[in-house]
Amino acid sequence: MADPKIEEALAPLRAAVKEQGDLVRSLKQSGAPDLDVKKAVVELKARKKILEDKELSLIPNVTFDRAKMEDLLKRRFFFDQSFAIYGGITGQFDFGPMGCAMKANMLNTWRSFFVLEEQMLEVDCSILTPEPVLKASGHVDRFADLMVKDIKNGNCFRLDHLIKAHLEKVAMEKGATPELKAECADIVVKLDGMTKDEMAAILKKFNIKAPLTNNDLTEPIEFNLMFATQIGPSGLVKGFLRPETAQGIFVNFKRLLEFNQGKLPFAAAQIGNAFRNEISPRSGLIRVREFTMAEIEHFCDPNDKAHPKFDTVRDTTLMLYSACNQMDGKSAEAVKIGDAVDKGLVANQTLGYFMARIHQFLVKVGVDPAKLRFRQHMSNEMAHYACDCWDAECLTSYGWVECVGCADRSAFDLTQHTKATGVRLAAEKKLPEPQTIDVVGMYHVESYELILSAAAVCRLMAKFSILNIYYGCHIPEAQPNKGAVGKEFKKEAKQVMDALAALDKDGVEQLAKQLAETSIYTLSVDGKDVKLTKDHVEVKKYQKTVHVEEITPNVIEPSFGIGRIMYAIFEHNFKTREGDEQRTFFSLPPVVAPYKCSLLPLMNNPEFIPIIKKLSQDLIQLDVSIKVDDSAGSIGRRYARTDEIAIPFGITIDFDTLKDATATLRERDSCQQVRIPLSELPTIVRDLAIGRRQWSEVESKYPKQGEVKE
Amino acid sequence: MADPKIEEALAPLRAAVKEQGDLVRSLKQSGAPDLDVKKAVVELKARKKILEDKELSLIPNVTFDRAKMEDLLKRRFFFDQSFAIYGGITGQFDFGPMGCAMKANMLNTWRSFFVLEEQMLEVDCSILTPEPVLKASGHVDRFADLMVKDIKNGNCFRLDHLIKAHLEKVAMEKGATPELKAECADIVVKLDGMTKDEMAAILKKFNIKAPLTNNDLTEPIEFNLMFATQIGPSGLVKGFLRPETAQGIFVNFKRLLEFNQGKLPFAAAQIGNAFRNEISPRSGLIRVREFTMAEIEHFCDPNDKAHPKFDTVRDTTLMLYSACNQMDGKSAEAVKIGDAVDKGLVANQTLGYFMARIHQFLVKVGVDPAKLRFRQHMSNEMAHYACDCWDAECLTSYGWVECVGCADRSAFDLTQHTKATGVRLAAEKKLPEPQTIDVVGMYHVESYELILSAAAVCRLMAKFSILNIYYGCHIPEAQPNKGAVGKEFKKEAKQVMDALAALDKDGVEQLAKQLAETSIYTLSVDGKDVKLTKDHVEVKKYQKTVHVEEITPNVIEPSFGIGRIMYAIFEHNFKTREGDEQRTFFSLPPVVAPYKCSLLPLMNNPEFIPIIKKLSQDLIQLDVSIKVDDSAGSIGRRYARTDEIAIPFGITIDFDTLKDATATLRERDSCQQVRIPLSELPTIVRDLAIGRRQWSEVESKYPKQGEVKE
Repeated sequence: MADPKIEEALAPLRAAVKEQGDLVRSLKQSGAPDLDVKKAVVELKARKKILEDKELSLIPNVTFDRAKMEDLLKRRFFFDQSFAIYGGITGQFDFGPMGCAMKANMLNTWRSFFVLEEQMLEVDCSILTPEPVLKASGHVDRFADLMVKDIKNGNCFRLDHLIKAHLEKVAMEKGATPELKAECADIVVKLDGMTKDEMAAILKKFNIKAPLTNNDLTEPIEFNLMFATQIGPSGLVKGFLRPETAQGIFVNFKRLLEFNQGKLPFAAAQIGNAFRNEISPRSGLIRVREFTMAEIEHFCDPNDKAHPKFDTVRDTTLMLYSACNQMDGKSAEAVKIGDAVDKGLVANQTLGYFMARIHQFLVKVGVDPAKLRFRQHMSNEMAHYACDCWDAECLTSYGWVECVGCADRSAFDLTQHTKATGVRLAAEKKLPEPQTIDVVGMYHVESYELILSAAAVCRLMAKFSILNIYYGCHIPEAQPNKGAVGKEFKKEAKQVMDALAALDKDGVEQLAKQLAETSIYTLSVDGKDVKLTKDHVEVKKYQKTVHVEEITPNVIEPSFGIGRIMYAIFEHNFKTREGDEQRTFFSLPPVVAPYKCSLLPLMNNPEFIPIIKKLSQDLIQLDVSIKVDDSAGSIGRRYARTDEIAIPFGITIDFDTLKDATATLRERDSCQQVRIPLSELPTIVRDLAIGRRQWSEVESKYPKQGEVKE
Repeated sequence: MADPKIEEALAPLRAAVKEQGDLVRSLKQSGAPDLDVKKAVVELKARKKILEDKELSLIPNVTFDRAKMEDLLKRRFFFDQSFAIYGGITGQFDFGPMGCAMKANMLNTWRSFFVLEEQMLEVDCSILTPEPVLKASGHVDRFADLMVKDIKNGNCFRLDHLIKAHLEKVAMEKGATPELKAECADIVVKLDGMTKDEMAAILKKFNIKAPLTNNDLTEPIEFNLMFATQIGPSGLVKGFLRPETAQGIFVNFKRLLEFNQGKLPFAAAQIGNAFRNEISPRSGLIRVREFTMAEIEHFCDPNDKAHPKFDTVRDTTLMLYSACNQMDGKSAEAVKIGDAVDKGLVANQTLGYFMARIHQFLVKVGVDPAKLRFRQHMSNEMAHYACDCWDAECLTSYGWVECVGCADRSAFDLTQHTKATGVRLAAEKKLPEPQTIDVVGMYHVESYELILSAAAVCRLMAKFSILNIYYGCHIPEAQPNKGAVGKEFKKEAKQVMDALAALDKDGVEQLAKQLAETSIYTLSVDGKDVKLTKDHVEVKKYQKTVHVEEITPNVIEPSFGIGRIMYAIFEHNFKTREGDEQRTFFSLPPVVAPYKCSLLPLMNNPEFIPIIKKLSQDLIQLDVSIKVDDSAGSIGRRYARTDEIAIPFGITIDFDTLKDATATLRERDSCQQVRIPLSELPTIVRDLAIGRRQWSEVESKYPKQGEVKE
């Protein structure tokens, strides 16, 4: 994008973004009213969008033909619409043998790359989730899109899509004045940041009706995107299909921490399906109702987000599209992640480490690094609890698509679930050195029991501002008994003890003071005053040594949308064979290719059968997935068919094989062929398939062979 | 179970079963009324259950302590109840790091064993399924359990569980007469085969009320076990979470057949989650609401169910518990699958092949072959469409548990979906030799077009009883034009042509006859009579060569319940270290063990760190999952901890390692240890982990080492 001509065309748009970005900054600095800031941000986003659209339109056209690619994906059943024979359901797709194998390969690679290599704790949690969990996470209240309904037939429309389509039509109409056109365009770019009321006003102003029927529309409705169901037969336990996998990890935090022997940091991971009831799914695999995610939740000390392996990625160069650059109308920039963290552009090492690893992973599975950038959320986009968030975006024919999110979610999730359940989701942190603290407790004199249960002690300690300090070891011995209280209060003794245990900090101090001053303390028990003396109760101050403090870990969350990544990989690897427009194929990296190797007997000759059989067995033994194509048709046509399903290597058995026990090995992208002894083939193909050996090595070691005539 | 004492105790029970089995047989043979047969079968099942319960109670107790095992599973987070901090949901479980890794290993093994080795077409289909699909499959109408509700508070009870609990209580009460006790016991064993009305009568007779509240109960209600939801925002598209993965394969049959280039047989496979809204889930992982299945649908010619690889399994011995043995009160018998198929005990080679492969797979992942049997469905248990069905059952502390079903489902599923959609889910079968058939067709004379579209030809051919015969090649040339019809009927020409095309077989023959006899044919067009002559239309008989016939494939379905298999594996591999009751562990086969190898530095010595690091990297490079345990604690205690999570191999680094670059390798089950050079360790452990090398080989090759003192 450094073409001077292009830059010339973009310059005024860049300037317009920067002007507005500066305005937003100055409004924020001057503490302007929220509404003013919000309006300015909407305008900023609009200008940004115009700039980005222009930028994309100026990229030299690489003759990408989406229809042609979709035809191939459908024809060779990589994926296709679900339940098509029943008319199909939008936003749902079935992966056929090729898509399924590719997906399984991607997930296995993900597991090796993240779970195994980083020693993460992988879990596999329930999809059906009871309502209170998603109430705490915020999804019940906030996970919604705006829609309107046709007042007569009930058809639903996503509000922003409807307005956009209507205004684009209005602007195209014959009588449209330049002013009207400009107004429409202006609204369309601002739609993304609009409130419900603003959109409702537009519906009214332009008198927008339901498409096709021209019926009236309802007021905008917030439609929650979760699929609801009932768990169990009573119909009383409301549940949802999870909209993300992350909550399953958070609710298991205590078990995971314990599994990790109480130590921080650690990361948990989960691969699984999630569901969103999109109002109008579109764009193939990009916006669907059912999808596979792979999520990581890295739990760490809020005060120490350094990452022990950060130095191993420090020199990885990423395209970073910072919030700052977005406000200044600049493009993404190539930055070493080490520098980005040092400069504070990326909030901390752990976030930076994962960004670099995400980049490495995406490139490994076939994303074109030239079509990959990390876009930082601007402060107004970010969830209120997040500290910093970068999306890995892939450039596709649908524009830049968010494929992986990488956010520092602070302590939000654990705090929410702690609030909702009363179960403290926290970890202990060793203090640099043990500390001695004062503790105040009450004892019944002459009882053999401490009247406070462990839970009560914790509650009490919390009251005494030592929340976050876990009590350590020696609770001083007390040798009183309940005798005195029991003797005096008989049946009410229990209530008296309970009332004592329920006293708050002030209450206990009051008690100590009154006993000291008057030797009598008046306690209210179920509305009745009861008099207690030093015989009944005593307050002691004592000291305690603590070794750890309690902290609520922060969470760094890399979250992968597997379907979206697959779609980007398809686009980035869709190729046409030079000189033959009709021969299309996918140049998928061997690591994710559905099959690794094809076996093609030159013709239907019985002498080839045992050779094919032996090779098949040997390759399968080495876990190399293969496809034997012994159908009729020239070798050339069969190669074309295996290229279509991205098989990177092909072995051809011909008459020379019978003589010298060698066969031809062909590489898909280069169409180069070498001749290799049968005995060496399985290991070589296995090594090529898992990336342990490169094609160039093999090519240089073995004799070349010209292309077999078709 | 061949202990003579045990057999003595079982003999009368066996005889009772046989007596009733013979009665059922004779009733069937004599064509007795259905109701009589049904009643006899219920009694047969009851006797069988008494026999089986007795058999199980007589198995020598192998001191299996379920509570102890469950404690270990929970403590080391193999799995645990979902959403426990929110109070939990019954019938839902989360797999922790150990359970998740084991599950992933099992599924990968399954994929290698079946998909890769058998070249199956794996798919990954949607979970959310629209109602019509499950209507066609029978789930909407028939997938239900009976329940009753507390009339006041709405609490639900599974009817059979409720009756059983009540009658067991009644029989235990003080005043219970021997007659009453016998009646209760009799009902309890017969419950499984009872109808809704029979159970309703029992509710009434015993005046059964809701437990705890003692409120009245509703009449029995059929409760559909599928989770319902709405797809899309309108609330109009009803959907369910799939209750099995199989339907996703059936609705994709055409695409899969095409992917397989139209050839039969082929198998499709799917791994994924399914959901059943159990009324009262119980027995841990055995009856849950959300579970992972792995299903295979093998499509084959209904007239040829031979399997090309059957000879490779012919000698595999399975414990077969045939329907016949069940009716005769006999036990399961060890039979070679080749003999079972030859004798007709197992219906066909393909079914037998899969049974053998299921057996091999289960044993490979850790099922104890002594606790595995294949039980044949008796004709009254089998779905009406199935030809034969064998369940692989594992013996657990809950009794024999069905873990894998293996059924010949005939053409049921494809036929149902064809009926529901009008899309023919069928395949072409090459005829042994081309056949010549007569075809009757109509042509407009002097037109250049054949008036019948290809679809109409097909319809026509179907009418002429050549359904199932696909038409072959040469449609004889016709050189008429629509002129005559057009001239005469002008605007109505199209209706005339349509009416002609819509004629059924009789109509066309009538037309031919009338034209031949009277030269005029009267056609009714939209209620109006129209006269046609030979100028307008002509009927020709011609011959056609066909090469293929159309068949609806049959389906052999092996269906694996992954959670149940895992549970059986846990039970079969739960061990106590001899001499120490407290040291429990799982002797999981390396192939499914969560981690393959532990790395234990003898103590916290900085000199060990680089060695551990290097070994870790090398092992991870070879895809060996590891756990480093550098915590304090003796080696013995750390071994015990790694044994608990089933790590099969452990490497200990000690001071000798620093001197001679060797380390100790320990095997979990035998506790034997050998000393191996560091450089050789990674490959050896990798080979052991994937089963390429056996421990005995390693043990004999390297010097032994005594157990490290704890």
